[in-house]
This record gives sequence, C-alpha cells and structure tokens, in this order.
Amino acid sequence: MKIGRQDQRSSAISTSNEDTILVRGRDLVRDLIGTLSFTEHFWLLVTGVLPSPAQRRVLDATLVAIAEHGLVPSVQVSRMTLAAAPEALQGAVAAGILGCGSVVLGSSEAAGRFLSQIEARATGNVSLEAAATSVVSEYRQARSAIPGYGHPLHRGGDPRAARLLQVAADTNTAGRHVEIARLVERLLPAILGRPLVLNVSGAIPAVLLDAGYPLLGLKGVPLLARTAGLIAHLVEEQQRAIGFVMSHAAAQAIDYDGAAPPGFKPSDET
Amino acid sequence: MKIGRQDQRSSAISTSNEDTILVRGRDLVRDLIGTLSFTEHFWLLVTGVLPSPAQRRVLDATLVAIAEHGLVPSVQVSRMTLAAAPEALQGAVAAGILGCGSVVLGSSEAAGRFLSQIEARATGNVSLEAAATSVVSEYRQARSAIPGYGHPLHRGGDPRAARLLQVAADTNTAGRHVEIARLVERLLPAILGRPLVLNVSGAIPAVLLDAGYPLLGLKGVPLLARTAGLIAHLVEEQQRAIGFVMSHAAAQAIDYDGAAPPGFKPSDET
Amino acid sequence: MKIGRQDQRSSAISTSNEDTILVRGRDLVRDLIGTLSFTEHFWLLVTGVLPSPAQRRVLDATLVAIAEHGLVPSVQVSRMTLAAAPEALQGAVAAGILGCGSVVLGSSEAAGRFLSQIEARATGNVSLEAAATSVVSEYRQARSAIPGYGHPLHRGGDPRAARLLQVAADTNTAGRHVEIARLVERLLPAILGRPLVLNVSGAIPAVLLDAGYPLLGLKGVPLLARTAGLIAHLVEEQQRAIGFVMSHAAAQAIDYDGAAPPGFKPSDET
Amino acid sequence: MKIGRQDQRSSAISTSNEDTILVRGRDLVRDLIGTLSFTEHFWLLVTGVLPSPAQRRVLDATLVAIAEHGLVPSVQVSRMTLAAAPEALQGAVAAGILGCGSVVLGSSEAAGRFLSQIEARATGNVSLEAAATSVVSEYRQARSAIPGYGHPLHRGGDPRAARLLQVAADTNTAGRHVEIARLVERLLPAILGRPLVLNVSGAIPAVLLDAGYPLLGLKGVPLLARTAGLIAHLVEEQQRAIGFVMSHAAAQAIDYDGAAPPGFKPSDET
Repeated sequence: MKIGRQDQRSSAISTSNEDTILVRGRDLVRDLIGTLSFTEHFWLLVTGVLPSPAQRRVLDATLVAIAEHGLVPSVQVSRMTLAAAPEALQGAVAAGILGCGSVVLGSSEAAGRFLSQIEARATGNVSLEAAATSVVSEYRQARSAIPGYGHPLHRGGDPRAARLLQVAADTNTAGRHVEIARLVERLLPAILGRPLVLNVSGAIPAVLLDAGYPLLGLKGVPLLARTAGLIAHLVEEQQRAIGFVMSHAAAQAIDYDGAAPPGFKPSDET
Repeated sequence: MKIGRQDQRSSAISTSNEDTILVRGRDLVRDLIGTLSFTEHFWLLVTGVLPSPAQRRVLDATLVAIAEHGLVPSVQVSRMTLAAAPEALQGAVAAGILGCGSVVLGSSEAAGRFLSQIEARATGNVSLEAAATSVVSEYRQARSAIPGYGHPLHRGGDPRAARLLQVAADTNTAGRHVEIARLVERLLPAILGRPLVLNVSGAIPAVLLDAGYPLLGLKGVPLLARTAGLIAHLVEEQQRAIGFVMSHAAAQAIDYDGAAPPGFKPSDET
Repeated sequence: MKIGRQDQRSSAISTSNEDTILVRGRDLVRDLIGTLSFTEHFWLLVTGVLPSPAQRRVLDATLVAIAEHGLVPSVQVSRMTLAAAPEALQGAVAAGILGCGSVVLGSSEAAGRFLSQIEARATGNVSLEAAATSVVSEYRQARSAIPGYGHPLHRGGDPRAARLLQVAADTNTAGRHVEIARLVERLLPAILGRPLVLNVSGAIPAVLLDAGYPLLGLKGVPLLARTAGLIAHLVEEQQRAIGFVMSHAAAQAIDYDGAAPPGFKPSDET
Repeated sequence: MKIGRQDQRSSAISTSNEDTILVRGRDLVRDLIGTLSFTEHFWLLVTGVLPSPAQRRVLDATLVAIAEHGLVPSVQVSRMTLAAAPEALQGAVAAGILGCGSVVLGSSEAAGRFLSQIEARATGNVSLEAAATSVVSEYRQARSAIPGYGHPLHRGGDPRAARLLQVAADTNTAGRHVEIARLVERLLPAILGRPLVLNVSGAIPAVLLDAGYPLLGLKGVPLLARTAGLIAHLVEEQQRAIGFVMSHAAAQAIDYDGAAPPGFKPSDET
C-alpha cells in the first residue's frame, strides 16, 4: 500500500556509478577524501555547500563541547547494552543515542526553535526584548521548560556555553541568535522569579544558527557528537567492563514496594 | 542481582565538578572547545592522547570515505523510520546505524582482525606471504567471506580504497597493515580462483592500524561516519519526504506466495 | 550529577531472592508459569491485577489485529537490518519497532488521548456530540490529523476496526469510548467535508479503554503485537532473504537530482 | 546497487487488498481476530500453522517465564531512555531489547543450538551421553560458556527452569531435548569441576524444540516476552520516574581514575 501523498521522488545528496561516487555534486574520491576534514564534510553533507573557515570552527567547537560529559544516562545505557550483547557494538551505540531526547542532550533543537521564534517575532516595532518576554511567557503558561537554560550540575553557569559564545565572537559569527540567548538569560530572573543559566544546549543553536547552520539539522549536532563519546566508552567497556557494576548499583538504589508474602526478603537488600 | 565477576569500578574518560569538566585529563572548556577539531577530539576520546597531524589526516580521510554512498539500506531504513515516527529523529538515526553490521558497513572491524591475524602470524621464519596464504585458506575452509574484499558495484576496484592508501603514503604512515592489504589482493585470484578487489572497509583498518589507531575502536569509524550521512538524509527527508515512496516500491518488488482463496488479488499487484 | 527532582525510589512490579521471583506480588513459578496465558500475564504486568475473561479476550483481539499487515515500512526496516547485520536479531527487531511512531502504527495512543478528551469534555449539559464536535474542530484548526481515522488502503472501512467493535459488543465491554469512536466517524464528513473511516488504531483504544485497560499503556499494544510480526518476518528472512532485494527496488524508485558532471550516468538508472 | 545474489523475491506471511487481509493464508478479520489468543497467533505467524493446545500451553509458559525479572539491565536501560526522551516510548522499548544479547536474556537461541548439536551428534552407536560429553568439551576448549546453564542469583537451581520442565511433562511434549538438558546438568560437575544449574534460558529451548517450535525462532521468545515486561516498566516510569535516580546511583558506583589537576574534586564524590 502507498502511505500518504508523497510524490517527491528524488534526492540530491549522493549518486554513483562503477567508477565515481558523487557527494553533493563533488567527486568523493578526487575532491573530498584526504582533502576535507570530517567536520567540513558533515557541513557539506547537511547543507550542500562547503563551510567557510569560521563556520567550520564554530561547528567543531559545538561538536567538541557536547561529545562527552562522563557517565551520563546515555553512556550508562550504552555500556550496559554492550555488556549484555557484546556481539553488536552498533546496538550499544544505537541504545545510547536513543537517549538523545527532549529532556536530556537533544534539547539543542528545541532551544533552536525557541530562539528562532523570538527572532521571527521581533519585527517592525516589536523590540527583541518584547518578543523574548512574550515567547518566554507563553512557554511558562504552557508549563514548558525553557529549552537551553538551567543545568543540574553547573548552577552558576555552564562553562561550555560561555566558551561557545566566545568562539562565536572570535570568529565574527555572533549575531542575532547569540544576542537573544544572552537577553533571555538576563530576562529570566524577573519572569520566572529565579535565575536560570544558559546551558550548552542553548549555546549550540545560538552560535550555529548565527553561523548559517540550518535549524532542521540542529539535533544532528548532539547526536553526532555523542556518538563519538559513546564509541570511546565502548572501547573502554571492552577493556574494563563496568556495565553490570553500574546496573547492580542502580538496582540497589530502588526499593520494591509491591505486595509480598510475610517475611519475604529481596536478595539485594539483605 | 550482580551479573558476572566484574570488579573494575573505574573509568578514565571524563569527570567533572560544578566549575570544570575534565576529558581525558584535559580541561574541556579551557583546552579543547574552540581549539581541537572534532576529529582530533574523537581520537583523544578513544585513545587518551592527541593525534599527530598525520594521524588526524588519516582519520579524517577514513571518516570522509565511508560517511555517504547514496540510498544504501541503512539510509533507507533511517528515512522510512523518520517518515513513520517524525517525533524522534534520534530513533531514525538509531535504526539506521543498527544496519552497521557484519555484512554491510560494519566489516571494517572484521577486516582489521583479519589483517592483524596475518600480521601476528608472520614472525620468525614465517613470511608475510605464507602467513597471508594460511589465514585466507582458513577463512575459505570455514566458508567465511574475506572481510574487506569485493564490492557489488565497484567491481574493477573500489576507488575509495585506492585513495585511502594514497593518503597513507602521503602522510608517511603506511606500514605493515597496508602492505598486507595489498598482498592479499594479489594472492586472492590464485587462492579463490577469481579476483576480489580491496574495498573501503578493507582499506580503512589498513591505514588506521598503521597510523596507530586501536583495533578495538575500528567499528566506531564507520558508525561515526555514517551517522553524519544519516543526519544529512534526515534533514532532506524533513524537506522532501521519500521514505514511504521507497517503501511502496520495495513492497511491490516482492510477491506473496503463501496460500490464498481462489481469485484473491493483492492490491499492490493489480 | 543528579538530573531532576525525582525522589521516588521504588517500583512495584517485581522482586526476587534466591528461591522466589515475585511478579506483581504473585509467585511467578508457583502461580503464573503454566497457569496464565501470555496475554493475561501482560495485563497483569501492566495493571497489577489479573484480567477477567472478557478483558483478556478484548486484549487478545487487539493484539491479533495489529500484529501483521504485510511488507509495511517497519517490516522492511527490520528485514533490511537483519540482512546487513545478521549477528544481532535483537537489532533488527529494535529497528523495526522504532517505526512504531506517531504517523504509522503508533497512533493508537494518540487516538486514545483524542477519545479521552471528548469523554472528559462531555459533562453536565455538554452532550457527547457537542464535545466531539469541539475537539475535532480544535484538531482541525491546529492542522493535526484526526488520530484513528482514515487508511491508505482500506478506504471503504478498515475491516479490523469493525471486527474489534464486534468483539467489544460480544464481550459486553463496549461503552462510552466505543460510542465516541462511532460518533466521530458519523460527524467527520460534515466537519471535514469528506468521509474518513475509523481505522484499527482508532478501534484499539476505543475497545481497550472501555475494557479498563489504562491509557498510559495503549502504545504498548501495537509495540508488543508488531514485535510478534517482526519476529515471524525475521525467521523467514533467515530462510529466504529479501532484505536487499527490497532495498535495491527502493533505491531504483528515487532519482538523483543534485549536481553532476556533464554526461555522468548513475549506475542504477542505466 | 544490488548487494549479494538474492533472487528470492517472495514472502509467504501476509498479503491484502482493499477488503481482505490474509495472514498465513487465513482471513485475519473473519478467522483470527476475536478467535485466536495472541500466543496462538504468534505461533501461526512464525510457523505457518496453528498450534495444538499443548503447543500453545508450552509457548505461553515460556513467554510468562522470561517476561519479567525486576530491575535487570534491559529494564534500567529502557527506563533511563524514557526519562531522557519521553516523546518516544518506542525508542525506550527498542533500547531495552537491544540488551537481549548473547550474554543476558538472548542466550535461549545459543542454548537451542547447543542442545540441537548434541541431538544431531547422537546417532548410530553414539550415545546421548557421549554426544553431550564431546560437545561440552568442545565448548570448554573454545573457552565458551555453556549456554543455558548457571545463574548469578538462583545458584541452587533456577526455579523457572524446573517449572518449565514440569509443564513439558504435564503436556506430554517432553522429548529428546529435555532429556539432553537434564543430562548435561548431570554431566557438568564432572567435566567442569563444579556444578552449574540449568537456567530459564536453557529450559526454554528444551521445551520449545520438543514441542515443535523452530530453532530459528527461539530468540524471538525472550524478545517478545521481555517487550511485555518493558512496557509495564515504562507505564510505571511515566507515573513514578526512577530512571534518573538509578542513573545517579550507577554513576556514583564508579570512580574516575584518569589524570586530573592537583586538588581536583569530582562533584559526585564529595
């Protein structure tokens, strides 16, 4: 059966024949392998054009910033999965990136939409500040978290966010989205009644959108970056396995509070 | 319950406190973001040390080589999954990389083990050629495919493989694994009775192992690279959806040959 | 770091010691294995109580209804993934169920929320019809599809939906949600300007909610059911492989329309 | 490009037209929905024929036995993934079943192959005992675990295994594979120098193969069963979230032993 009314039948990313592989119109073997860095290639794949040195530097900075932050849930998931299924490293990576969601790690895209909404609303005689205030208030009324702000560990300020804004300044790419990101951080204490710092997932879309990276590709940045971190953890897991150690500790942290026969003792709590 | 006898309780990749994030012993914010390229960071994450310029160039070349090759199964899987579940881009990426397996895309690691086996066997008075011949013969007897050789489209030679060996030569990193990879290509016609060309999944471990990249991290290279390609396809899928078009064509290519009432006509074949 | 303010530290589903495994307070070995059907066990796991015969029959009917519908996208994804990575059947199943999303297969939950919204709004002097009309109009204004209605193949009526409503009638479980599901089907032509039939993903929540199955567990029904269908396809794929045949046909259905050197011929279109 | 030499172009599982859906040659709506239990439908999907009451009962028993065992790694992975990405329940289920691997949960298939190997070798004048001894010795020489034996918690005997063998006896389906499973348990102390009890993953293939369920479908049994357990946990996770509580405890169990500046204090250890 045919689902939907899709009649687009083409793709513009890559094609090939026996001798030549074209990627975004370029000869992969002759022009790209050995010439481009992986970051430049990623920009080319996503956008269809090569990045400027400044664009490349901003994209590199965001990928480095979000690749690794210790034994966070996605890493634990990945290492536990490899411990249980060592025959499929790809399965352990897949399990890990499934945690790149709206709450953790994947909020760069939501933050990008948030910044873009403010940017789009600030036209004519609506100031940036008025636009920001009205969008933030709408999120608040809908009881939605403000994406890109707040961090469970770095309460005084996410040092990665500050560094990314610095890279944007150094490369002369900082523009309206960075301005909005800073502005919202200033406005939040008054609107929410408490401060909430710009975090790495808020800084990533700010600097990337200003550099010309597309909104639809934002979620790809933490996904690609974290894949690198997961692979490093899986190489370590093969050498010193901690997946089941973590799982044991996690289970012990939770009590069973369902029905049980009198005198029943769960084994983990004795 | 505690599974297994794991008593390792530590990790050496990353730690943090409220002010500082350490990655491989370095201050992420001060020393890495804005300084390292993503490729250098990936090497650092996996190995614990920074790559030399030559090592970085070889790793970049392999990542660029394997990131994208058109509408291959992993890409189709990813785009079909996004069409069905647009709320979770991470799910579409995960589905795609689950196809980075032993048959397609994931064979770099198997090829790396194959090359390493030959390398390890060629000691003392066993020549490389004798070692290669005996290992290939064992694979043949076990009816296993020779990993890293043969390609369904590029029968006259995978142009990506040749280019990667060239990069290894240009960076003066080519060594024993590249030598083995070439040697096996020369020996195969006599042993198998037909030529089988070195493909990109054979060249990747050859140049990376020679450059000092670890065997246990080899599978991470196609996984990371393909994630970049999948993200590009998912950005395109959001703009021009072909997931269900491909699915419709795929279903039409297959007949139903089970039992059916007399005169029953499947809808897709009328 | 600790994410969020979760202070719940308990679970009520299962615990065990060396001799006994408790599931929902019952002795798994003594009371459940060999006594319960899998469907009864699933109901017990999700709700904490055993189903009545009528509840079991309704849940069985929904699971049977949605388990299999030929070479749909989730099945293709699963078979292509096994073809590429035969070492990990679990990866092929996971890839398939990642397509159980908001557009295809996973809409039972959205339909359940839609029916529940109407049910909740019809209180006091608001008739069911008024409640249904206002909720449908809101979906329309938000340009959202009406979940649980319409089918690309079964345009005259999804025969599975009619059968499920019959099972609800036969078991005397049909109630307000089934009434709403039928009512909406009657109202849609006038509101949307065209008829849209109740489909299996609309009938599933209607009969399950009336039978007392919880809204939060609705998405589990197509997920569990389709897992059964995927496994059957993967058993067949191991015996007669069509994953790459489908992939080849899918790729041929799509043209490349990016840049290319003059005279370049893609191999698949010659 | 076309991968491999697959020329099979048909499937025998399901087809449909606008009015009728055929599953394994039967009319889904008229003959299966409301008539079959989900377990019978699963057997029909996998094998193409309906099960006898005894076969259904054995399959039900195995599915009930392996569906749930508390906060095991696959469940933790699933709940952590939902906590991070609540927008995609299918992603949390997929992450969980990716841990149905060769070490944990997925060993039913390996155990089935092990039992079948012994069964196939015991022909002519080779006794079952001689066949079992030689196969076990080969596993030992290859330093492979004996699949289906041993359990980290139930050291005195996995009570689920004993119960499954009882169900096989009660339904008169117990045959040669059950005999082999028991025989190996008796032989292991002498061969390995220590006792190793038959576990649930060894009993499942023993009773299913004797009941006529196919070897190629064995891995589907823990996969389908655990999906039911995961769904129950995800329903609970939506109501009382423990995903990040478990993750916090897991991270605290692991020390960082990489390089660090003098005096650096990780936040989780203070």
